[in-house]
Amino acid sequence: MSEIFSATVSAPTNIACIKYWGKASIPLNTPINDSVSVTLHQKDLKAVTTASCSASFKEDKLWLNGIPVSLEGNKRFYSCLNGVRALAKEKGKFDGMKVHVSSYNTFPTAAGLASSAAGYAALTFAFKELFDAKEDYEGQLSTIARQGSGSACRSLYGGFVAWRKGNDPYNNGEDSMAVQIAPESHWPEIRALILVVSDKKKDTSSTKGMSTSVATSKLLAHRADSIVAKRMEDIEKAYLRKDFESFGKITMMDSNQFHATCLDTYPPIFYMNDISKGVIQLIHKYNEFCGEIRAAYTFDAGPNAVLYTLEKYQIEILALVLHCYPCSDKSAFVSNSNLAEEARAFKLSDELVDLVAVNHASVGDVKVVYCTESGPGPLRLDDKESLIDLVTGDNLYNS
Amino acid sequence: MSEIFSATVSAPTNIACIKYWGKASIPLNTPINDSVSVTLHQKDLKAVTTASCSASFKEDKLWLNGIPVSLEGNKRFYSCLNGVRALAKEKGKFDGMKVHVSSYNTFPTAAGLASSAAGYAALTFAFKELFDAKEDYEGQLSTIARQGSGSACRSLYGGFVAWRKGNDPYNNGEDSMAVQIAPESHWPEIRALILVVSDKKKDTSSTKGMSTSVATSKLLAHRADSIVAKRMEDIEKAYLRKDFESFGKITMMDSNQFHATCLDTYPPIFYMNDISKGVIQLIHKYNEFCGEIRAAYTFDAGPNAVLYTLEKYQIEILALVLHCYPCSDKSAFVSNSNLAEEARAFKLSDELVDLVAVNHASVGDVKVVYCTESGPGPLRLDDKESLIDLVTGDNLYNS
Repeated sequence: MSEIFSATVSAPTNIACIKYWGKASIPLNTPINDSVSVTLHQKDLKAVTTASCSASFKEDKLWLNGIPVSLEGNKRFYSCLNGVRALAKEKGKFDGMKVHVSSYNTFPTAAGLASSAAGYAALTFAFKELFDAKEDYEGQLSTIARQGSGSACRSLYGGFVAWRKGNDPYNNGEDSMAVQIAPESHWPEIRALILVVSDKKKDTSSTKGMSTSVATSKLLAHRADSIVAKRMEDIEKAYLRKDFESFGKITMMDSNQFHATCLDTYPPIFYMNDISKGVIQLIHKYNEFCGEIRAAYTFDAGPNAVLYTLEKYQIEILALVLHCYPCSDKSAFVSNSNLAEEARAFKLSDELVDLVAVNHASVGDVKVVYCTESGPGPLRLDDKESLIDLVTGDNLYNS
Repeated sequence: MSEIFSATVSAPTNIACIKYWGKASIPLNTPINDSVSVTLHQKDLKAVTTASCSASFKEDKLWLNGIPVSLEGNKRFYSCLNGVRALAKEKGKFDGMKVHVSSYNTFPTAAGLASSAAGYAALTFAFKELFDAKEDYEGQLSTIARQGSGSACRSLYGGFVAWRKGNDPYNNGEDSMAVQIAPESHWPEIRALILVVSDKKKDTSSTKGMSTSVATSKLLAHRADSIVAKRMEDIEKAYLRKDFESFGKITMMDSNQFHATCLDTYPPIFYMNDISKGVIQLIHKYNEFCGEIRAAYTFDAGPNAVLYTLEKYQIEILALVLHCYPCSDKSAFVSNSNLAEEARAFKLSDELVDLVAVNHASVGDVKVVYCTESGPGPLRLDDKESLIDLVTGDNLYNS
């Protein structure tokens, strides 16, 4: 048996404040507009991937959450593999070797949270470590991750990360890359509460949804051409000067505008449901009551709400969520039990309780709340954490 | 007691295919874009108004649905009264006389259907008849009704009616008027099913909603400036050549775009709920199954659906609605009992039933269905139907 080379990494997910919706080029997987997101901490939500290769391996193999998955025709996977291998410092060293890759994520299936950003970021970063790859220019790896899944490029950096569409995204993907606007240390007080919302419907996949939107929504074209650039400028400035009022307002407006373009699609696409709308109305009431923006909602291609806030308001907002969304199983409801305890002990003002009394939530409308914060980009892990047996090349992970 | 002059009229409501949303001038009540609607038949839904005046009347009085309503500060009412009185053929004859007006409508409160269009059309037309008013130019009366309620101007004509925003709606309301595109006799096969949808929320008033949208939604400005004109041209042509495929598609797209601009408003406005979305998805499935557009939904500032269709598909669509939306009280569910009976006897194809089986409606989601068609503009009624006692000047109507 020849030597098995390997690298094990973890990578974060990210939640966009200015949304990516619409591809300029489907083969290049470039976007029609810039976007920007907060990278979430990996303590709660992450993808872990081991990439290995060896002259002894007979074929490329992939295990996802412990289950073998066929790689036949998987262009996304091979874009990442071939793209990174071409950047290996020792040219030719790994050429012709087959790879064994095992990956899992800590996103509960029930959560319906997009895991492809973390997954392709982890895959790209694992190949980089495996092949000891070096970028020809800064951001090049993110152009490779982008070909796996668009928003994955932003997960290659921590903190606040923009995805620049590039100068000619219709014909050239080389400069359609992620750029870190600020590291996670810049604004450590940022917090994210993820409200996993009950839903009966199957969502439209974002790839299919985007292509229908690009083909039919005149409002989407106008958004991409005439609105996003100014918003990007404004929200990047707001983040850099830690101006939550502006950051929050732009985040909420852009989430709403993204869903507006989905509704303007023909046939229309609905990702939010009545529970999502209830969360939106709750947050506007809360902010109005406070006389300032203390919480900002954002929704991706599904009904789950992500609430951005600051450390100092986190407990109050969690208390408000627990008050308005009764849960059947308290112990499992909040990801962080210390915060949950603090929030349950928190006394909401009577006026606020009165103000939100008209909300019509039912038990189980919100199924679970994750409390998290901003965090770093992908991390190299110790070989002890390998998901591949480094002697046999077999998968070690069982979900 | 001096002579009492009076006129009793009825007026229809209308449901827009290209939506009016946003005022160019609040004092003039002019719109930022053209709109167009189908005038509905008055057999089911109408406003009935008696306007009377006499030198003996001591003060202006108004009864709505039998209840006295203060006229103090009611600019809309006085715009109509003074606007029409100024056009009286016999100049000066009615000057200084106080008016007594009684009005009711047949829109059940539960229906939440906009009654202001019918109400102000009836008021304007009743004053016209009372004062024997004559327009200086065609459409002038509709500019007066417009000052009562924007969409009321379209209810002054039957059939398919456009509201032209005018050449300078920001400064001049004189040519912001209704124009009949085709009388109701042009396309007699057009049918409308109104699905009254259950809702827990109080809606944002359309006046307040519009002004917030104009102030905050960049998508609304783009829609008004760059999208509506082409849609107006296309849908007017489609109506004139009785092209239901185009008429229906534009109607659905424009309803969705209107609601998209509401969602793009800050804070966002939601008029549709999950039941409305279910109706939208049902209609797209049905049309796809048929291989052509046989039904087109449209939603105003509330969750109720209006489905436009043609006479030949009416029973099938009603059968589909009855199949998907179980009702607790069958006898009260459909406005027209003959059609209801036909629809209940109609055999939907098994494939269609399978296709819509994933709908998740609960009993009572749709509360009542009105089956109606296109009809004429306001009508003068006989004095026997007067809502004012023509001897005493008192209100006669009790709801």
